[in-house]
Order: sequence, then structure tokens, then C-alpha cells
Amino acid sequence: MATTQGQVITCKAAVAWEPNKPLTIEDVEVAPPQANEVRIQILFTALCHTDAYTWSGKDPEGLFPCILGHEAAGIVESVGEGVTHVKPGDHVIPCYQAECGECKFCKSGKTNLCGKVRAATGVGVMMTDRKPRFSIKGKPIYHFMGTSTFSQYTVVHDVSVAKIHLDAPLEKVCLLGCGVPTGLGAVWNTAKVEPGSIVAIFGLGTVGLAVAEGAKSAGASRVIGIDIDSSKFDTAKNFGVTEFINPKDHEKPIQQVISDLTDGGVDYSFECIGNVSVMRSALECCHKGWGTSVIVGVAASGQEISTRPFQLVTGRVWKGTAFGGFKSRSQVPWLVEKYLKKEIKVDEYITHNLTLAEINEAFDLMHEGKCLRCVLALH
Amino acid sequence: MATTQGQVITCKAAVAWEPNKPLTIEDVEVAPPQANEVRIQILFTALCHTDAYTWSGKDPEGLFPCILGHEAAGIVESVGEGVTHVKPGDHVIPCYQAECGECKFCKSGKTNLCGKVRAATGVGVMMTDRKPRFSIKGKPIYHFMGTSTFSQYTVVHDVSVAKIHLDAPLEKVCLLGCGVPTGLGAVWNTAKVEPGSIVAIFGLGTVGLAVAEGAKSAGASRVIGIDIDSSKFDTAKNFGVTEFINPKDHEKPIQQVISDLTDGGVDYSFECIGNVSVMRSALECCHKGWGTSVIVGVAASGQEISTRPFQLVTGRVWKGTAFGGFKSRSQVPWLVEKYLKKEIKVDEYITHNLTLAEINEAFDLMHEGKCLRCVLALH
Repeated sequence: MATTQGQVITCKAAVAWEPNKPLTIEDVEVAPPQANEVRIQILFTALCHTDAYTWSGKDPEGLFPCILGHEAAGIVESVGEGVTHVKPGDHVIPCYQAECGECKFCKSGKTNLCGKVRAATGVGVMMTDRKPRFSIKGKPIYHFMGTSTFSQYTVVHDVSVAKIHLDAPLEKVCLLGCGVPTGLGAVWNTAKVEPGSIVAIFGLGTVGLAVAEGAKSAGASRVIGIDIDSSKFDTAKNFGVTEFINPKDHEKPIQQVISDLTDGGVDYSFECIGNVSVMRSALECCHKGWGTSVIVGVAASGQEISTRPFQLVTGRVWKGTAFGGFKSRSQVPWLVEKYLKKEIKVDEYITHNLTLAEINEAFDLMHEGKCLRCVLALH
Repeated sequence: MATTQGQVITCKAAVAWEPNKPLTIEDVEVAPPQANEVRIQILFTALCHTDAYTWSGKDPEGLFPCILGHEAAGIVESVGEGVTHVKPGDHVIPCYQAECGECKFCKSGKTNLCGKVRAATGVGVMMTDRKPRFSIKGKPIYHFMGTSTFSQYTVVHDVSVAKIHLDAPLEKVCLLGCGVPTGLGAVWNTAKVEPGSIVAIFGLGTVGLAVAEGAKSAGASRVIGIDIDSSKFDTAKNFGVTEFINPKDHEKPIQQVISDLTDGGVDYSFECIGNVSVMRSALECCHKGWGTSVIVGVAASGQEISTRPFQLVTGRVWKGTAFGGFKSRSQVPWLVEKYLKKEIKVDEYITHNLTLAEINEAFDLMHEGKCLRCVLALH
């Protein structure tokens, strides 16, 4: 690996040139890491709906051309000055949610939303010089979420790299970069579901199924899955869903259906779709006095949630979560170890394996609802 | 007192015959308490905005004719069969929020919203026979909030009576039936404000000032009061408000003004007005990552709160409170003792003292914003 250190690496990456146009595989130049930066050889990346959202052009923060991707695993190729916690050869998961340990957010003990590099990652560049490390024939290509994992090599801030156990299969644990922790953490960290709780999950994709798994491990007595695709129930059972409701099978509003089935509502609900009207249902199906609803899905820009304030005055709580409240650098390695000890599922979410060259096909699969997670091999 | 026991008592009460028409003082017949009921001689009652709201006709649950009033103190005149925790002569505060200790809500340990008598109190009658105990020449007059304290005698469910210390001055502690506990409890029970916190309070009426007092006692480092009437700041300082903002003095949205003054937002905010657009500001002035907003005010029927879900996904929490989360029968006596030990203010909220005959004048004072609490003597 020493041969590439300090050099520009030219490699393959899927570039989004403009919204909604197919990604194209390009030869991209990846500059060496500067101070407090890490260059990573990405071996496997999965696709997530947030990639598709930005690609669609609906994300007002979206910048083009860019390299998308944020759920991946790889090996450190080289590090910039001042980087001490990882070295070339380390196995890592890039983390779109940084953890510096020093900012107001990290020190608060109340949140995982580190603020250190957000001013740069929010606009597709690196902190040091406010420029991207990607270019094609001199033309800069923006970063995405501080990760840009749809590239054989990427450069990230050192506060955005979690070092993981060398035994972990990278083609599996790449999923611990986003969807699975988001679901598990929504239950464990944000809602703090107690044994015996009744839980409702809206949307049975990867995140919703991870919520189910988290709820089961937290000792929930009933885990009600809600989805407009009834075929998802069979899979969902394996993740801990005990009952299934398809809103299309009912004339009454779904919150009323759930309330009737649960003697007044659920203890905890999770919205894992990103639909603001479902977010309202998720809140309103909660039990008066204590029901807590957690927004996990990402709604389209400009959309708003609403309800009658009476819902909150009578004791319901409305919350949200990002990356499940996990502190990335500290806790992703812990999740990897839980996986190695077979305490959490990961393999079971992977329904498809393709290569970087097949990335547009992978997005099609996702949009068709035919897959949970599709993992791309990059080399 | 034995002379009236078991008899119908004819006494003075302020009756709301129809929405928005002045209350009239009438001779009302008050039937004896039935099983699990308590008849109370009301000595002092205060007025609250919730009385005015129902009186205005905007409350879809409002029933007429009725006897309003829910913040009062008195002496037990007689009790019905099965009543064991109070006896004639006991000093009591009627509680619009019951506490039975036996229902799903009481047993949960998570809420003060007892469900035992709500089906009756919500429609202005008593549980036993689904009828009111008030009448005028045989015409039934509905109860209000299970309390109806604008009457020299009232009948309430036994689960709605808090027995208090005989030393407590009833002309003062009547305030512990609603507004003051609501504000204190919003801080202590619902938000659980920690020492060093920055707090914002929207609306500096009685409830807002009680929030300030609660925040000060919880060790808040800054207590920011927000009101469109700058003259309220002088009084507010005495209750713990350390800074004052009048939104009319600023062109920027108030949430932005507050965020700028607090390095990103407050730790806790409280809406004590009942205005849905202020509720949004209160949420959005909270700090990313952990800021918690508590809705304390009661909005008009049909109105809705809204925000971008991003506000919650980035860590803000939206809650509400009713009676400050206090369990009424257990904790109102404790609040009374705190008052007797001078640990909480009560006298300072009383700006006016009038008689039952002057009740319409008292409502005028309230609507003009000229008083905090007006206490009416009923005998």
C-alpha cells in the first residue's frame, strides 16, 4: 500500500452528474488525505434511500456532480497529518455521522450529532481547504454526507472513521454504516423500549426490520408491523414482528385500527418510511399518557408534520432519531462485535449482491421494493 | 354541618346559561352526594383561562347550562357511601384531574391522567347515575371538569378530592388546584429541567410565572421570558425570569432571535399561551440534539401544530403536560405543605380579590390582562 501513499489515486467511481440521470462509472482522481483526513479503499458498499433521495434532486442540500454512498466498509490506504486513531491497513466503516469527542454536542452526553465537520460535509467539501478531494480531469466532484462510498477510494475526515475488528467480514458489516444501527438505536437509545412494551412499526424495509429486531431484543411483548405490501410479513416475522396490519385492508384510519387492537394504543411507535402523514398516524396510535413516537424516516424537503396539540398535552411524546442515536466512532465497533458474537443480525438484510458497474440496476431493485439491502463489490 | 347532610342544599352559584352570555348568580339546588361522591362547601375559587375558553363556546366538549370553575378550596360538607379518605370538616382542594390509584393510567407510574371518572366528567355528569347533582327548579345544570367550583356547594367524585393540611389558608391555596402546579410540574415532572439549563418561557401569565419559579428552583442558569407585553417583565423577575424578549421588538422570527442569544437554542422551552404558532416557535428555539419543548397552554379546538420533521430527527423532543404531571390526590397535599414551609410561592400570584357576585368583573380583568389570579370569596 505504501506505493500509493501521498499520490493521487485514479480509480473507478459511480458519479451522479445531475439529478435523476443514471450514474456513470468514471475514472476519478482521488487526492491524498490532508491533515486529519483518511483515505479509504472501499471494498463494499450498500445502497440506502437517502442516496436515492439526493440523487432525485429533491434534497435542497444536494450538490452535483457528486459521488453518493454512505453505507460501506473498507481498509485504510493512508492517513494525513495528525491522524492517530487509525493507520493504513485498519479495517474501517466510514461514518456519515462524525464523532469528535470535543464539540458541544459530543460533550453534552445527550446526543450523537457531532458538529465538528458538518459545515464542510453539508456542502460536499473537506474542512481543511473547503475543497473536494475528488476530481475528473481537473473538474471537482463533490463529496456526499462526508463519506462518498460509491468509489473504490474515498477521503473522509478522521472523526468520521470507525475502526472495526479485523475478523469482521466487510461484505456484511458494511450495513452497520447506516440502516441497521438506525433501527436498532431508535429502539435502544432514542425510545428506550422496556420489556413488555407494545410496539408499532410503520414500514418494513431494512430500517423497520431493524426496529423489530431491536424491539424483540428489548423484550417487547407485541411488535406490530404496518406496511401496504402484505408480502413483507413473512420476512418480517423472522426479525421479530408478531402481528401485521395492512392499512389497505381497513376503512378506519390506521391509528384507530391500532388503538382498537391495543386497548388504547401502543407504548412506542416508529415511522420508518419518511411520509409525513404516516408520521402523524404513528404519533396518534400511541397510548394516551405515555406513548412515544419516534420519527426515523427522512421526509422530503419542505414537508411538514402536524397534529392537534391535545395529542401531546395528553401525554404522547414526539421524537426523532438520526443514526439511531449511536455515537459512531465509539459504538459502530461495538455493533460489529455484537454481530461477530451473533447477538445482532446483519447477513439477513442482504438480499442482493452486485458490482459497482451494476449500480443503476441496484437502484432499480430498491425502487421496485424487491430488495432489503443490495451490497456492491467495488474491486 | 350535620343539619344539611342528606338534604338538598340551596345555595348561590354562577351559572353559564349559554356561550358568551354573562354568568348569572342563581339559587341552585345541590343534591346530596351519592356513593363515592363528596359534597364540598367551596370557600374560595380562582378563575382560569380554561373556564373562559369553555364559556366562550369554542370548547366542543362544553355543555350548557353549566357551573364553571376548577381552581378552588373548601371544606367537606358530607360524603356518600363508600367514601373513606375524607370526612365532613376536612379541608380539601377539588381536583379536575382525578387519581383513583387503580386504573391502567394510575398503575402505569408513567402518567397522572387517571381514567376512572373521565367518561362522566367529560359530559358534565356524575358516574353513579350519569346525572348532574345541580338543578334549578328541577332543570338540570351540568358539571364542568368534575369540579364546578363557581358554586357555594359542589359535588365531586371521591377520586377528585385532595385532603390538605388544616393550617393552610384556603383563600391562598385554592390556586394549587390548577395554574401554579401546572407550571411547576411542567418543569419538575414533564421536562425534568437540570441545574445549569437554559429555559425559554412563552407567555408570562400565572402558568408561565410558575414555570419560571420551577425553573429557578431546578437550578436553571438562564430563564428567558417571552411576551408581547413588556410591562410583564418587572413582575416576572420576582418569579425567576432573568431575561426578557418582546417579539415585537424584533424583525427576525423569535426562534431565530432566541437561538442567536443562546449559542444554538435553549435546553427547555414551555408554551404557556395556547397559541399553535407560538408552540412551533417554542419547539424550534430548542437546541439541536437535545432541546425539549413542553406544550402547557391549551389551544382552541381544531387548531393544529406543525413543524418540519427534521426538527425532531435532529434531536428535539416535543411533549405536553396536563396539571404539570402531578398526581392530584397524592401530590396536591405535598404542594400545600411546600407552600406552608415557604418553599413555593402562592400569595404572589393573587392580584385581585372579589366576591362571587362580581364574577363577570373578574373575567373582564382576566381578559384585559390586568390580573394574574383573581380569587373570589363565595361566602
